[in-house]
Amino acid sequence: MRIALLGGTGDLGEGLAVRLASHTDHEVVIGSRDPDAAHDAADAYRATVADHGRDVKVTGFENAMATDRADVVVLAVPPYTVADTVDSVAGGLREGNVIVTPAAGMCRDDDGAHAHLPSAGSVTALVAEAAPAGVDVVGAFHSLPAGRLADLDAELGIDTLLVGDDDRAKRVVSGIVDDVDGLRALDAGELANAAEVESLTPLLLNVARQNDARDLGVSFR
Amino acid sequence: MRIALLGGTGDLGEGLAVRLASHTDHEVVIGSRDPDAAHDAADAYRATVADHGRDVKVTGFENAMATDRADVVVLAVPPYTVADTVDSVAGGLREGNVIVTPAAGMCRDDDGAHAHLPSAGSVTALVAEAAPAGVDVVGAFHSLPAGRLADLDAELGIDTLLVGDDDRAKRVVSGIVDDVDGLRALDAGELANAAEVESLTPLLLNVARQNDARDLGVSFR
Repeated sequence: MRIALLGGTGDLGEGLAVRLASHTDHEVVIGSRDPDAAHDAADAYRATVADHGRDVKVTGFENAMATDRADVVVLAVPPYTVADTVDSVAGGLREGNVIVTPAAGMCRDDDGAHAHLPSAGSVTALVAEAAPAGVDVVGAFHSLPAGRLADLDAELGIDTLLVGDDDRAKRVVSGIVDDVDGLRALDAGELANAAEVESLTPLLLNVARQNDARDLGVSFR
Repeated sequence: MRIALLGGTGDLGEGLAVRLASHTDHEVVIGSRDPDAAHDAADAYRATVADHGRDVKVTGFENAMATDRADVVVLAVPPYTVADTVDSVAGGLREGNVIVTPAAGMCRDDDGAHAHLPSAGSVTALVAEAAPAGVDVVGAFHSLPAGRLADLDAELGIDTLLVGDDDRAKRVVSGIVDDVDGLRALDAGELANAAEVESLTPLLLNVARQNDARDLGVSFR
């Protein structure tokens, strides 16, 4: 499968890119608003994966071009830019494509991070509203620690939750996740359940901060 | 320490009672609005613990009497009754007592369970407003699977998060939790962070339902 990581020059994009390129046979394409940044990031990720003994192709393009011919498009962008990002790549999306949204609406104060959901109810719902007809949306990757993904020597042993209204799309994402050693996908139900899933992101930040931990993930057991 | 489990005839009360009586040296007192129900439950829990080789005292009383001389009071009652329950036992609370609140504001629809927080911001905040001066409140136990706690043969290996504004009170609760084999307490910060912690309860219910799992817990790793 061809997986485009839009905003793929950021921390989560890096983590997903190197894990997918290292552990799976999917083709990884890095997208960015800046094609040079996308190209440079792709080169860096390819080098990281090569250092760990696997020689694979990772390419980088401007977001719309990265989306072209992709099967799965991950919106690794800030929550307030998800709708604009979908609009900017809509021309390259085809029926059956799957958009994955890992962003969580958050605000911060002295106490920590707090869920701050958009009026649509969740960022996942916002993406579903922006997606072209025939393109399915799955909320996923909210609880994945970017830095730990990016470090290919780090153990994972953690879960990611999937929400969305289309079972086929969730199966596609679940299949990709389960190809990565140490990651497990768990269905958390319909789009209506996205708010609780997105609330994991501020929760994990707060628990990490209070316990001098970094890059915490979560396991349901 | 003397730990009163108000609403202790319910599922979480049972789970906490048998684990605390079985794994720790704390004195467990079951509280209920109905003293006979409290007494019967205490007898049943004591028998369960005895079946697993430990002969300890578990007593049962009406809530206010159970609270008398308790060091820690757990409100294992439905979220909409927390304030009334605190009021009904306030006469027995002394300065330095710790109230623990595990309740989460939730609603349910066809899709699953959803966070439904009170106007105070969280059930924990509601309890903090109702607590007498000098009595500290800790939100905890939201993510603990009651049925698995109640089955003393079941493995745990799970965490519970603590929120609250008083560090001493959190240390008291943390000490109790860590006395139970397979349970770990993790600080999630101040009372202001309670909403995200309470959102774990509907999330766990949704994940369990979608995956035909029962009594899921969570581990931060």
